[in-house]
Amino acid sequence: MTLTVMAVTGIPDIAPGDDLPGLLVEAVSSIGLHDGDVVVVTHKGVSKAEGFMVDAPDDLAYRMLVEEEAAAVLRRRGDLVIAETKHGFVCANSGVDRSNVENGKAVLLPRDPDRSANRIRTRLMKASGVELAVIITDTFGVAGMKPMLDLRGTPDMYGRTMEVTEVAIADEIAAAADLVMGKTARIPAAVVRGVGYLRGNGTAKDLIRPPNEDLFR
Amino acid sequence: MTLTVMAVTGIPDIAPGDDLPGLLVEAVSSIGLHDGDVVVVTHKGVSKAEGFMVDAPDDLAYRMLVEEEAAAVLRRRGDLVIAETKHGFVCANSGVDRSNVENGKAVLLPRDPDRSANRIRTRLMKASGVELAVIITDTFGVAGMKPMLDLRGTPDMYGRTMEVTEVAIADEIAAAADLVMGKTARIPAAVVRGVGYLRGNGTAKDLIRPPNEDLFR
Repeated sequence: MTLTVMAVTGIPDIAPGDDLPGLLVEAVSSIGLHDGDVVVVTHKGVSKAEGFMVDAPDDLAYRMLVEEEAAAVLRRRGDLVIAETKHGFVCANSGVDRSNVENGKAVLLPRDPDRSANRIRTRLMKASGVELAVIITDTFGVAGMKPMLDLRGTPDMYGRTMEVTEVAIADEIAAAADLVMGKTARIPAAVVRGVGYLRGNGTAKDLIRPPNEDLFR
Repeated sequence: MTLTVMAVTGIPDIAPGDDLPGLLVEAVSSIGLHDGDVVVVTHKGVSKAEGFMVDAPDDLAYRMLVEEEAAAVLRRRGDLVIAETKHGFVCANSGVDRSNVENGKAVLLPRDPDRSANRIRTRLMKASGVELAVIITDTFGVAGMKPMLDLRGTPDMYGRTMEVTEVAIADEIAAAADLVMGKTARIPAAVVRGVGYLRGNGTAKDLIRPPNEDLFR
């Protein structure tokens, strides 16, 4: 079994109002999409295109944004805030990010990442004619796949029923994609080929642990 | 940039005393190792070969093992224990695992996973003649690479200096490998090709957060 992770290159710096699905259709044409591919897109690219870039002239303004974007602050450690966002995601600094953004600006999370993923998926499927899945990293949105692989009830190699194993397969795919997209690079997307995921309607909310299992609470 | 993740097949169920480095040398020969490859090996395979398989006839015995293997219990939630192990790793159930192990047995973490990684690396390099890195998952041991990619001080695409970004690249490689090794399968290793990691002496202990940054404390 072989997995291939390909960087999607040639996408220019994304600006508010850009047609990101259209840019992706064009950029992946040199790779060529196959049935079962997963297209991973950074949420930063999505947020920029959808206009969720705001002013953050200084550290204080940034800190205030982090508080504003938090539905609840779960933990603070120095400058780091672990917050639950309005979407229900638990993440660092409410997902507000200043890296790879022009000076004085910050990027918020997309408002509805599953919907963004679905929109991108529809355009890519229409252009390529194949069935595929889309993940918005850091796994804030998914379309066309179940983000968790639930192995509970599956026999292991000794015939013992696995009791607790659930694999956050969408997170693993996002991590694999991150290896080619990098953090400093201008690469907002990757194609992951060869993953055996479960097709169907999924939502990144499936990855959110219920509060009684969430160890940050 | 393209990354390839290949499952290493053909390794039989590993038993105590097996020469795991030798089994790996043989099994990867059909793939052929390249300079810069990362060979990922499950800690379960390592622990079985090194004899860290113990009796756990029932749930109570298993629970006791989890307590015994914990240097400190950081959190409990239902049956789940988040513990610091004697190595200093923070993990679920002290890393004691009953899945994919014969009934009535459990597998502990390897005693010195970095050393196991180094031993495997030496044998694979000797047999292949190329330089490579080894990771023992879930990133409990590394050899031949720096497990963290420290981007602090690197300029981002706007020339802004990145202040906080460190990428746990070894964790991302382990996640990518997990996608082909699976949880129910008999595949204890994978080869990851095309990752730009930093060569050198590393230890998985670099991935352990200092207590003041560890949000489980």
